[in-house]
Parts: sequence; C-alpha cells; structure tokens
Amino acid sequence: MTADGFVESVEDTLRTFVNSRRELVQGVSPVYSDAVDELVSFVLRGGKRVRPAFAWTGWVGAGGDPSSAGAPAVLAVCSALELVQACALIHDDIIDSSLTRRGFPTVHVTFAERHRAQGWSGDPDRYGESVGVLLGDLALCWADDMVRFADLDADAAGRVAPVWSAMRTEVMGGQLLDITVEASGDESVEAALRIDRYKTAAYTVERPLLIGAALADADPALIAAYHRFGADIGVAFQLRDDLLGVFGDPEITGKPSGDDLREGKRTVLLAVALAAADRVAPDSAAMIRSKIGTDLSDDEVDTLRSALIDLGAVDDVESRISALTDSALAELDLSDATAPAKERLRSMAWSATRREY
Amino acid sequence: MTADGFVESVEDTLRTFVNSRRELVQGVSPVYSDAVDELVSFVLRGGKRVRPAFAWTGWVGAGGDPSSAGAPAVLAVCSALELVQACALIHDDIIDSSLTRRGFPTVHVTFAERHRAQGWSGDPDRYGESVGVLLGDLALCWADDMVRFADLDADAAGRVAPVWSAMRTEVMGGQLLDITVEASGDESVEAALRIDRYKTAAYTVERPLLIGAALADADPALIAAYHRFGADIGVAFQLRDDLLGVFGDPEITGKPSGDDLREGKRTVLLAVALAAADRVAPDSAAMIRSKIGTDLSDDEVDTLRSALIDLGAVDDVESRISALTDSALAELDLSDATAPAKERLRSMAWSATRREY
Repeated sequence: MTADGFVESVEDTLRTFVNSRRELVQGVSPVYSDAVDELVSFVLRGGKRVRPAFAWTGWVGAGGDPSSAGAPAVLAVCSALELVQACALIHDDIIDSSLTRRGFPTVHVTFAERHRAQGWSGDPDRYGESVGVLLGDLALCWADDMVRFADLDADAAGRVAPVWSAMRTEVMGGQLLDITVEASGDESVEAALRIDRYKTAAYTVERPLLIGAALADADPALIAAYHRFGADIGVAFQLRDDLLGVFGDPEITGKPSGDDLREGKRTVLLAVALAAADRVAPDSAAMIRSKIGTDLSDDEVDTLRSALIDLGAVDDVESRISALTDSALAELDLSDATAPAKERLRSMAWSATRREY
Repeated sequence: MTADGFVESVEDTLRTFVNSRRELVQGVSPVYSDAVDELVSFVLRGGKRVRPAFAWTGWVGAGGDPSSAGAPAVLAVCSALELVQACALIHDDIIDSSLTRRGFPTVHVTFAERHRAQGWSGDPDRYGESVGVLLGDLALCWADDMVRFADLDADAAGRVAPVWSAMRTEVMGGQLLDITVEASGDESVEAALRIDRYKTAAYTVERPLLIGAALADADPALIAAYHRFGADIGVAFQLRDDLLGVFGDPEITGKPSGDDLREGKRTVLLAVALAAADRVAPDSAAMIRSKIGTDLSDDEVDTLRSALIDLGAVDDVESRISALTDSALAELDLSDATAPAKERLRSMAWSATRREY
C-alpha cells in the first residue's frame, strides 16, 4: 500500500464506521446529527494519519500481511487512533483557547459562531466549548467502539487491550502534566522531556507501533525494539516540532511564525536556553522570562530567536535530535522487523525529524 | 446481595480497578497521580450506584446467578457504568459552571483552588476546567477498560458491545440536545421529553437493564420488556427529579430550593406550564419567561412555584409520572423476569418516582 493509498484507506474505514452510527445519532435528534456532521468533517478533514501509519507499519514489520483476510480488522484498529486524536485535538483546542486548526475554525469556535449567528441566549463561547467537550467525548467513545467492533479474534483483541489502554492513560497524563508544568512554572529540562515522552512519543509512535505488534503477535525482542525506537523517534519528532514552532516557515508549519513563543509553550528548547542563561547570562534569562508567553511583536520574536541560538539551545536540541534519531535507527536496523517495514519506518523517522528551515 | 452490600461491592470493584492503574499513572508523573487521586475520591465518594444496580438486576432478572463463577465479571461491567457517570458529571459540572457536587467542590473548582493556593501563573478557572476535561476523559477511557478487562467470555462480550456503545452515544446526544435546547429557547414539551428520554431514561435505566440482559443472554421478549420498562420508569424518574428541583426539600435533594428555576432548566414541567400559560394566561407566561434562569429571590421562587401549580403543570407532570409508572410496572409484571428481580425493580421504580415533598 502506498502512503497515499494508506491515508485513503484509513479515511474510508473511518467513513464506514461513522456511517454505521448515523441511524443511532439521528434517532436521538436532528440537532445531534448536525453536530456529529461537524465532528465527522473534522475527522475526515485530513492530517497525515501518522498514528495509524505507525500502527499499520508495526503490524507489517511483525509479519502482518496486508493481503490477508485479517487485514481489514487491523486497519480498523489503526484507524481508531484517529478518533482518539480527534478527541485530543478538540479538547486541547478548548484548553488552549485555540481559534484555528488545520486552517479551519476549531470545533468550539464553530459552535460558538453558530450560537452567535442564531442569536441564541446565553454565552456563545461557553456553548461552543460545551459542544466541543461533548463531541470530543463522543470521538473517544467511538474510538473504543471501532476497536471493539473490529473483527479481531479473541487472542488478538486480548493482546491489544493492555496497549490500547496504556496509550490512552498515558496521553491524558502527558496533557495534564503539560498544563500543570506550564501553570506551575516548572522550567526544568526534565519536565519538558517527560511531557514529550508521554504526550508525543508514547502516544504518536511507540504505542501505535506496539498496537501493531500486538495485532501481529510479535515476539518480545521486536516489541522491545519498537519500544526503544518509538520512544526515541517520538521525542526527536517533538523536538523538531518545537524548533519549527519557533523558527519554522509559516507556509510549512501552518502556524504563525514564533507562535510557540507567544503561547509560552514549555519546550525542551526553552528549558535548555533558560538553564544556560541562568548559568552564563542572567540578563538574557530575565529577558526571556519577561517576554515568553506574551503578545510579542515580530521584532521581539526575532530577539528571542537570537537569544535561543546564542545560548546554544538550538545546537543542543539539534544534537539531541541527531542522537535520538541515530539510536532509533540503529535499534531498527538490529531488529527483526520485515524489510518493507524497516524501509518505511526509516523514511517516516527521517521525514519527522529532518531539518527544514 | 442486599442493596447496601451491592453498593459496597461496586465500590470494591472500582477500587480494585483503579488500583490496577496506579503504577501506569505513577510512571507518567507524581503530578498525574495526585490528580488521579482526586478523580478516585470523586468516584468513590458515593452516590446510590443506581446504574450498576439496574444493570445487575437486569442480569439477575434474566437468570444471572450471583453465586456463579461468572458473577465478578458481570459486577465489573456493572461497576464500569459509574466511571461513565463520573465523566458525565465532571464534564456536566464544567458545562453548567457548577460549584458543588454531592456537598463537595466540583472537580474543576478543586483544581482551580489548588492553582490559586499555589499562586501559579495563568487563569485558575481555566486551569481547573482543563484538568476537569482531562480527568473526565480519563474516567471515560477507564470505563471502557473495565469492560474490556472484565473476564467475560467472547459471546457475552459480543452481546454487550452494541448496548454499551449505544448507551454512550445516546447520553452524549442527550446532553448535547439539552444545552442546545436551552440555548435556542425551544420551549416545547416534545424537546424536554426527548432530553429526558436520552439524557436520563436510556442512560440511567433502559441501557443498564439491557446490558444486564445482554450479559445473561436474555430472550428477546424480556429484552423488549426491559426496554419499555426502562424507558417509562426512566422518564418518570426524571419528571420526579424535575418536581424536586423546584419543590424539593433542600435537606433531601442536597440542592438549594428552587435551584432548577434559577438555572433555567428546560424541564417538561416548565414546558407544560408555558404551553398552558400561552393558552390561558399570557401575563403569567410573560412573567415566567422573564424570571426563569435569573438570580431569583426566595419570594420570586415562591411566585414561580405558585404559577406552576395554578397553571396545572404540577398536576400534569404528576399524572405523567403515575401513567408511566403504571405502564412500566404492568410491563414488568407481565415479563418473565425472575421473581427477586421483579421485586427489586418494583422497589427501585417506587423509590425513584414516589412523591416526597
């Protein structure tokens, strides 16, 4: 299956699933149907389907055969990850008060606008957020339903269960840690790395690979290799994302340049810079702390960027990315994953961590 | 099992489950553990465990044997309903901006207070709500995990799956309909009844009974009887709750007297009153519309109460409760549910719908 073909297959699988829920939803109320249409558009609007791709490749790497009779059930479980992700994004956008996502208004903003357009009573923003909370909940339930109704044999379902469960518990923890670290002002590299580990690496790479491995009944050595590869590449992926969030081309990232600085995101990049500044440049440390998370002008963004470079934080993060990518790829080479899966994982690792600004 | 014994068993089952997650949670971060402790306290703080009780009784009524080897797995599925309910309450309290629940600060208020006490940065209320969203999500995931890890045989798991799935999709729809009907100012009796049907009846009585039936592999006639009994008693239960929300003794309801009037809840009681007032007493209709959902004095609450009585809305709702309870109990009598289950369901129906103010 080509990468494009895979994305289409995931979207077809999601479409088939949500269509199977339409009658139940319509039975409750046309109001519900309308809201669910918005959720479905959101889910089908795109994204690279990176979590399903890691899960599928994990399965192929452990000997799963895409032409086998069991492949559609595997594809359903892989696709379900996009519904967990829909919940994560919708709820995250509420938490961050984000206005846009993938170039469209966020779900809560869409419903706030509907409320305003109708001239309804009560607070439009509160209504929008409430609908967003509920639609995120529904996406989370439906993710489970997709796994539950995937036509897995009982052994495979039993093997997937603990991985599926751990993934969701970890990602909620990663998010909770993220907002708490930001609120409490914990500036340590350790805290930032821990968020990357659970909010990104485990959720985006490691657990999806392990879900694929569980589906294929992989041997313990391959599971261990996926575990290490996923943890390392996943963190490298987040570190690259952090650099793009500060230095990236808005055309490529889809976010205003320097957005992470305005939002005051507690990244490893920032933590490393502050630690260095505290050691050697207290004025610079004070400047960064006073600016970060404020409504920065473009000039101020440039000043902060220069500080991050001058303090060696960018080099430090680049080194971390290189080291993590190297160790992950070495782990992959040594593993007994099948050759097509190794090639695909190498390519995914490369495209997620390469320097492009 | 006595009613008290049952509540204890449900709580023990919940406790055992959450303890099985502790290591995973602690592995993410002590910050996460602390937050999860609050979720666990919330879940174990009480409530009548009415949904697990209906599910368990549905199972017993279809021939399930509490002394059989399979009973603990059934109890786990029944108990999982309390984690769905934890999510519903935590998220509902955010949606309604509620300050207290069961005599304690709501979850989002608890975390906002922690933020304030620590003097953290950012908006404490936003932090509290964010943590509430995430802990609700976690409870929803854990509900699924409890079902997934309950030691059901594959056939029973297959029978439970569609009912479990429908229940969650329906309750999200009921909540969404509720906030949308309130925002859009839909005053129809039909809309209020539809909310009662999905937000309360299906979720609280009907689907739990049908989960019990699915676990016991009940025959279609009993499933149909549970379906009708649950829909009717569930709506009757909500109608009683609506009357208590306006006329109830705060000592019994745990809510300030007249609270539903201040909140502007779109109940069948209110819809019936407005429909009657529009026909016969336009001044009264205008008075009700201007007062409802505002910060009412005790005198104003009394005025509204009198209007609801004078317009015949209270009698109308009492008649509906009686008719629904009668039809539900007749359905139950005719069914082939086992004698102990019939007795228990009769008693639950009675205590949930009787007049006590």
